[in-house]
Amino acid sequence: MGLLPETLERLVSQLNKLPGIGTRSAERIALYLLHCNSNDVKQLAELMLAARERVRHCSICGALTETDPCLICSDDRRDSSIICVVEKPTDIINIEKTGVFKGKYHVLGGKISPLSGIEPEDLRIVELEKRINQENIKEVVLALAADVEGDATSFYIAKRLAQYGVKISRIAHGIPAGGGLEYADQVTLSKALEGRREIDK
Amino acid sequence: MGLLPETLERLVSQLNKLPGIGTRSAERIALYLLHCNSNDVKQLAELMLAARERVRHCSICGALTETDPCLICSDDRRDSSIICVVEKPTDIINIEKTGVFKGKYHVLGGKISPLSGIEPEDLRIVELEKRINQENIKEVVLALAADVEGDATSFYIAKRLAQYGVKISRIAHGIPAGGGLEYADQVTLSKALEGRREIDK
Repeated sequence: MGLLPETLERLVSQLNKLPGIGTRSAERIALYLLHCNSNDVKQLAELMLAARERVRHCSICGALTETDPCLICSDDRRDSSIICVVEKPTDIINIEKTGVFKGKYHVLGGKISPLSGIEPEDLRIVELEKRINQENIKEVVLALAADVEGDATSFYIAKRLAQYGVKISRIAHGIPAGGGLEYADQVTLSKALEGRREIDK
Repeated sequence: MGLLPETLERLVSQLNKLPGIGTRSAERIALYLLHCNSNDVKQLAELMLAARERVRHCSICGALTETDPCLICSDDRRDSSIICVVEKPTDIINIEKTGVFKGKYHVLGGKISPLSGIEPEDLRIVELEKRINQENIKEVVLALAADVEGDATSFYIAKRLAQYGVKISRIAHGIPAGGGLEYADQVTLSKALEGRREIDK
């Protein structure tokens, strides 16, 4: 005999599978679901299923979307001559929040990582090349992580795209805004020094 | 225009309502739900609804159960002359895990807490009195929290039950197992001293 009613026990073990949810959190959430507003539970259950059904990857850029092409790809006001390459669909959201970038996006779907078995052909690089051939793209901005794999992937893509004659840039790495030098690690600081820019006088 | 597809945005905001789930965790879980095994999502959604439908409070003790009376209340092998009073249904689980208590339970549904507007009549004390009148109960063990409200509630119940001539006890408060004196706070240590027991020689 389990200590919790069986349905509750099974609910806890399903919640436990979610990322970042341990047994204690799962129990807490399960008990909350028993007592909260019943409309909330119904909505949550329906949205979980609806999201899976409706949310797709954009066939052009790979972003998460309910319409295909996605809202950004089909927005004529955005500059289609500059394309920002990101690792994951959610990276787009973070860049969009800055409001600075007005071009289009391309989601790679990961970083080259031989240790995890992720090779260049597992990423959406061929799709990127196709877009460079078909669309009138002048600049590709690589916005991958500032880690070893992000570096390797950026250099690999830069080399591979060299033949197309488009400008290839990479977002700057350096001291984060608001950060004093005493909090920056040595790698960040050395990248910040390398990436120094002359001040206009 | 939201940055996430609308269904996903709504899923995140529903997940965000769960206890202990902030915006970042909600986003992470929502994205996981988009890509994980589709059976898992379906099961989770169904269990959330099924749990609400099937899991009830036992009409005798107030524990969470799918059968009424609950498995403990309807278990003849358990000692029905001793009843353990707890605050929440989940407290029963913690006590059951010890395997030490073989009596029955009674869930109060809270602690007296005038500041939060919880008065004695909001708790299942009348139901406890009824059980004392009807069942052949010899001892009531109060297993409430060792905080101010738990203390107040224990004393209130002890006073109110005095008229029924049953033995009323309270679980011991003291140094937790494995804890050195240096880690015990002063209140715990003074309760441990007050509650000292003679060693049988």
